[in-house]
Amino acid sequence: METENKLSLDRVYQAAFALKDIARKTDLIYSPHFSNKNEIYLKTENLQVTGSFKLRGAYFKISRLTEEEKAAGIVACSAGNHAQGVALSASRIGIRSTICMPDGAPISKVEATKAHGADVCLVKGAYDDAYAYACKLQDETGATFIHPFDDPDVIAGQGTIGLEILDQLKDVDAIVVPVGGGGLISGIAFAVKHLKPDVKVYGVQAREAASMADSLKYDEQVTLSTVNTFADGIAVKHPGDLTFSLIREYVDEIVTVSEDEIAAAILALIEKQKLIAEGAGAVSVAAVMFDKIPVEGKNVVCLVSGGNIDVNILSRVITRGLVTSGRNATLNIALEDKPGQLVDVATIIASCGANVTGVHYGHSDPNTAVTSCILMLDIETRDFAQIEQIKNKLTGDGFKLL
Amino acid sequence: METENKLSLDRVYQAAFALKDIARKTDLIYSPHFSNKNEIYLKTENLQVTGSFKLRGAYFKISRLTEEEKAAGIVACSAGNHAQGVALSASRIGIRSTICMPDGAPISKVEATKAHGADVCLVKGAYDDAYAYACKLQDETGATFIHPFDDPDVIAGQGTIGLEILDQLKDVDAIVVPVGGGGLISGIAFAVKHLKPDVKVYGVQAREAASMADSLKYDEQVTLSTVNTFADGIAVKHPGDLTFSLIREYVDEIVTVSEDEIAAAILALIEKQKLIAEGAGAVSVAAVMFDKIPVEGKNVVCLVSGGNIDVNILSRVITRGLVTSGRNATLNIALEDKPGQLVDVATIIASCGANVTGVHYGHSDPNTAVTSCILMLDIETRDFAQIEQIKNKLTGDGFKLL
Repeated sequence: METENKLSLDRVYQAAFALKDIARKTDLIYSPHFSNKNEIYLKTENLQVTGSFKLRGAYFKISRLTEEEKAAGIVACSAGNHAQGVALSASRIGIRSTICMPDGAPISKVEATKAHGADVCLVKGAYDDAYAYACKLQDETGATFIHPFDDPDVIAGQGTIGLEILDQLKDVDAIVVPVGGGGLISGIAFAVKHLKPDVKVYGVQAREAASMADSLKYDEQVTLSTVNTFADGIAVKHPGDLTFSLIREYVDEIVTVSEDEIAAAILALIEKQKLIAEGAGAVSVAAVMFDKIPVEGKNVVCLVSGGNIDVNILSRVITRGLVTSGRNATLNIALEDKPGQLVDVATIIASCGANVTGVHYGHSDPNTAVTSCILMLDIETRDFAQIEQIKNKLTGDGFKLL
Repeated sequence: METENKLSLDRVYQAAFALKDIARKTDLIYSPHFSNKNEIYLKTENLQVTGSFKLRGAYFKISRLTEEEKAAGIVACSAGNHAQGVALSASRIGIRSTICMPDGAPISKVEATKAHGADVCLVKGAYDDAYAYACKLQDETGATFIHPFDDPDVIAGQGTIGLEILDQLKDVDAIVVPVGGGGLISGIAFAVKHLKPDVKVYGVQAREAASMADSLKYDEQVTLSTVNTFADGIAVKHPGDLTFSLIREYVDEIVTVSEDEIAAAILALIEKQKLIAEGAGAVSVAAVMFDKIPVEGKNVVCLVSGGNIDVNILSRVITRGLVTSGRNATLNIALEDKPGQLVDVATIIASCGANVTGVHYGHSDPNTAVTSCILMLDIETRDFAQIEQIKNKLTGDGFKLL
């Protein structure tokens, strides 16, 4: 049985066959915008069924359980994409699944997991508490625990993306892959390096959750005490055993990106590619945008691994992006406390073609005269030049900007 | 030369051949979420090069100009997708293009058009002024004017989408298409009805810009005095001559959707499909979501025609969607004007697991006691149930909600 539990190219091909009618062969989209002294392509696993690649590994793993194991059901622990992948896979195969989620998980992810047919078990506390509860369930019920990454079948399933990339872009030189626990990049690197060893495979982590990058650096598996990134899909404290050894063998380098770089990549994917990526899904694009990897002159595939971003987070990313690109601004204007002042300000702003979206008004700033008050205006603008134009007109007309 | 200027199936196939290395054969994506007693597929022209289908018609039209015409250059008028389609097409063919745009056009669209290699001519005023100026340029320079929709070559180019749909979904029963000037639906309906006449073709317009729907109703081309929709890509006051006659012959029905329905469709496409659609691109999905067309039990293709939405508008659509789905709320709370009140309120909200994102505070409401003030809080919530829970706890602790 030893060989049964080992990753092999053969097993990746078996996974590809098993996934034929389950997973979409997601589009590989050339991006003129991101191409800069190179050719950048996006492998759009955010458009995969369930909104991420996780379906591939989960389905292949579950499809290979014995009839006895299937009858006992499966259990998994996840606050995110793995939950949906497992839930849908179990439904398709016709077995019961129980997914343990921390009770603070976004309602949208809980609902999506239920909609795919799983029993969701909300556990009080954080991920570790949900994990402990899932292990308890496994012991009590004899269900099989489906690990999110440290399992050769799960890794073989994710590896099918590597086969598709080689098929979709014959001349690929480099593949850039988000890294959390490392299952995705392990599968892709294993498949690609066996078939076309000269293709470079780079991993990308969030700087605030760089457990795999640090483990490579120290050449041993490190455990982070905290992970602090909005890319929750790759916020993993400790690398897997199997994934760590595969990555050491097959991956060329792992780099990191900052939270602001991830946010900029999400906004660029929206504006330029019309694609929604979650934080974890956008790190590969962030790494290319901010020159973290040596890909000049190369044909590069950035894997956009998922799109399941909470809309509240998305809204904040967009708002932040609008401010940092000069398309939203807030003006603080000291007004004399007499009639007509607001009319004058509003007239100036309208004459410059900007749009007022918020107004606040107060008297209590100790730095201004008793007879004056402060007007805070939120405005929509075209660019920084227009903001400057408005500011100049206001000060030219005697208004004081704070 | 008469036959040269007539739409034919032959010409649609010629367009498909001409577009082989220019336009992407965009993915047809099955949507479990939108399927409801039917099977819904999305034809993702928002993922087309330039972010909309307009490239197809523009490129085919320009590719068929004589060498003499090409040497004289081309001119077009557009504030949006047609501008980018013409600009990129001209660059690929190696000729000069001048695009007249109203000077209020979003800077992002002006920049994208320039980036595709066009000379952009910003004309003071609205679309009609830009159009008049484009006609003047045409007269003065002998350049060819590329009409956005009322041209048989442009229509043949858009018709290639019909060929692709028939190829991608053999059993298609109905195709739902956004309608502005009518070039897109004319081409698709013409191609599809010639090849597979039993396929239904439905058009969708914004209710506030229903020039084609009204023209069909009155059986003559009507002109709207104003169009008032954020789906700017289909805000057309007057149908084309050719498109009106083609639609009368080949389209089964044109329905309309409201602004709120369009916004809901955009948000659903983001959350469930990870796709950015502009207002015009989302009307087809809105029509299916809100049961405007009889498609029960059918295999339906919704054409998502474009994704070039201004990020400020997108931000507003998302914000509105968060409020209408219970994930953002504003609470107005009457406080007694004494220390510790804010602590109590903040504690209650935190204990319910919600997140405060904005605070405003004022004394001036005449409906409250002189000794009280009003606290306005913006909060992020999971759903309406959580908002109710917070409200109940606040009133239970003696706070008065306004």
